[in-house]
Amino acid sequence: MLSLIVKPIFYSKKSIKYSSNFKVIRQFLNKMGVKEVASNKSFGGYQKVYEHESEECKCMMRFGVYFPPQAETKKCPVLYYLSGLTCTEQNVVTKGGTQGPAAKNGIIIVTPDTSPRGCKIDGEDDSYDFGSGAGFYVDATEPKWKTNYRMYSYVTKELVQVINSNFTSKVDADKMSVFGHSMGGHGALVLALKQPGKYKSVSAFAPITNPTQCGWGQKALGGYLGTNKSTHEEYDSCHLVRKYKGPKLEILVDQGSSDQFLQEQLLPDHFVTACADAGMPLQLRIQEGYDHSYFFMSSFMEDHINHHAKFLNA
Amino acid sequence: MLSLIVKPIFYSKKSIKYSSNFKVIRQFLNKMGVKEVASNKSFGGYQKVYEHESEECKCMMRFGVYFPPQAETKKCPVLYYLSGLTCTEQNVVTKGGTQGPAAKNGIIIVTPDTSPRGCKIDGEDDSYDFGSGAGFYVDATEPKWKTNYRMYSYVTKELVQVINSNFTSKVDADKMSVFGHSMGGHGALVLALKQPGKYKSVSAFAPITNPTQCGWGQKALGGYLGTNKSTHEEYDSCHLVRKYKGPKLEILVDQGSSDQFLQEQLLPDHFVTACADAGMPLQLRIQEGYDHSYFFMSSFMEDHINHHAKFLNA
Repeated sequence: MLSLIVKPIFYSKKSIKYSSNFKVIRQFLNKMGVKEVASNKSFGGYQKVYEHESEECKCMMRFGVYFPPQAETKKCPVLYYLSGLTCTEQNVVTKGGTQGPAAKNGIIIVTPDTSPRGCKIDGEDDSYDFGSGAGFYVDATEPKWKTNYRMYSYVTKELVQVINSNFTSKVDADKMSVFGHSMGGHGALVLALKQPGKYKSVSAFAPITNPTQCGWGQKALGGYLGTNKSTHEEYDSCHLVRKYKGPKLEILVDQGSSDQFLQEQLLPDHFVTACADAGMPLQLRIQEGYDHSYFFMSSFMEDHINHHAKFLNA
Repeated sequence: MLSLIVKPIFYSKKSIKYSSNFKVIRQFLNKMGVKEVASNKSFGGYQKVYEHESEECKCMMRFGVYFPPQAETKKCPVLYYLSGLTCTEQNVVTKGGTQGPAAKNGIIIVTPDTSPRGCKIDGEDDSYDFGSGAGFYVDATEPKWKTNYRMYSYVTKELVQVINSNFTSKVDADKMSVFGHSMGGHGALVLALKQPGKYKSVSAFAPITNPTQCGWGQKALGGYLGTNKSTHEEYDSCHLVRKYKGPKLEILVDQGSSDQFLQEQLLPDHFVTACADAGMPLQLRIQEGYDHSYFFMSSFMEDHINHHAKFLNA
C-alpha cells in the first residue's frame, strides 16, 4: 500500500515569517497537510491516525481513519463518527468495533477528536464536561472560547476538506453520513438536521437529544454561546427537527435502558415527541439492560454501520 | 439476571487472627469467593470483571469473564484467553472483540491477568518483560519468585476451580479450551501440550513458540526457573510438542507478516518444524501486513472462537 503521508516539504516556521509566498504555501499545507502518526492493518484494511494543524481550531488536531480493503481499488463513502465527553479519537478506534463492519460494507470511518487541545485557555482542562474533551460540536461565540472552540465548522467543513483532498483516490466525496455516541450523538443529529441533504443518513447511540433541557447541555451551550437562549436552540435536535425542511432522514437511535444518564441528560422521550410533531421517521430502540459504555455501543455498531450502508451504498 | 457475587460474609481480617475456625472459613472463602468489580451488558450477555484472593499467587488477582446470553439458561463451555506482556485482564476485555463471536457461539471467555501484582518483591516492576505483567505462565522455582509467581498452577488449577465453583449453573466444567496472544500464545500452547486431553482445542495469535531460543523467553525462564536448562524445556512448545502423547490437537496459529517481533522472539518456523517432526497437525496462517497489536488479533478473533466452537460445541 502506498504511504498516505502528505508532508509539508517546504514548511519552515522561521522562513515563513519573512516571505509572503511561503505564507501562502504554509496556509495551503496547513489546510491540506496531514501527518500519519499510526497505522495498523485491521480486518483487511488499515486503521490510521493522523494529525494536522487545524485552521478552525488553531491547534494540532488528531483524527482516526479506517480505510476498508475496498478503498485500495475504488472510492468509498465516508461515515463520520463523533465521540462523547472525555474521549479522544482513540476510544472508538480501540474499543468501538467499527473496523469489522466497515470492512464488510466498504465504508471509510473518520473519527475526530472531541475538542481542541492545549490552547492555553484559562480553565480549559478543569471540567470533564466543558473545555478539553467536551467541544459539544458547536462554534463558540463567547470571547474566551471563540478562537479555538469551533468544532461545528471543524467537523462539517475543515475535516471534510482534509479527508477529501488528502485521500482523493479512496474517498467518494459525494457520499457521507454521520453518527456518534452521547455528546457525539447530539453532534451527529445536529449536523444532519442543520444541513439537510449533506449527510445521506444519521444515527446515534444514547445521544443528548435536548441539550437546552439538561445539565450537560445547559453548561456547554451557556459557556460557549453565552446567555442568549435562542442561539442555544440552533444546536438542539428537538428544536432543529421541528423546523427541518429537507429530505426525510430515517433516524436510528439505540438507547440502553440501564444507562445512568438516561433520565437526566439524554431525554430520548423529548426527541420522540419532537420527531412525531415534525413527521420525522425515527427508529428508537430501547436496549434492555445496556448502560452508557462502549460495551453497549460496540454491541450495536454493526447494526448502525449496516444502517448507513443502506444509504451510502445505494 | 441473578447476581453472581459470592461475598465472603464472615470474612474479617481482624477476627481471623484469633480463631482457627475463622481461619478455615477464610481459607475456604479465599479459594472460592470472588468479588464482582465490573459488569456491563455486551452482545446480549455480560462482560464481568472479578477479583479474588489467590492461594497460588498469594495476592489479589483480577480476571474477566464474558457470559454469553446462552449462559442464562444452560451450561456453556469455557474458553480461556491468556494475554501478552504488559497486559492486564483489561486489554482483551476492551480491545479483543471477543464478546460478539462468543455470544454467537455460546461460549464463556475467561481472561486472567498476566502475573501476580503488588507482591513487594524487589524489582518486580522494573521490566516490561519480567515480573509484573510478565508471569510467563510458569511456576517459578527461584527463591525470590516462587512464593507468588505460580501462573501455571493459577491458570490451570486455581482459576478453573474458581470459575467452576462460582458459576456452576453457567459453566460446563467438562468442556474447556485455551488460546492467547504472544506470551499468552506461548502459555496456551504450553498448557495444551503439558496436559493432554484437558483442553479440547488450542490456538494462538503470534505466540512465542520457542522461548528457550529467544530473548524474552531466556530472560523469563532463567529468572523464574534458574540456570538448569532442562527445566526451561518444560515450558517450551517446540520441546513439548516433540514429546507429546495424547489426543491430536488441530492447532491454529495466526501470525502477522509485519510483526516486529517475528524474527527475534516468536520463531514460528521453529514450531512448524517441531510439529512436523511430531506429526502434530498445525494450521499456521501468515497474515500479510499485520503487526503484533490488538488490531491484528481482533481481526481474527472470530476465526479463532469459531475454531474452538467446533470442538467445544461438538
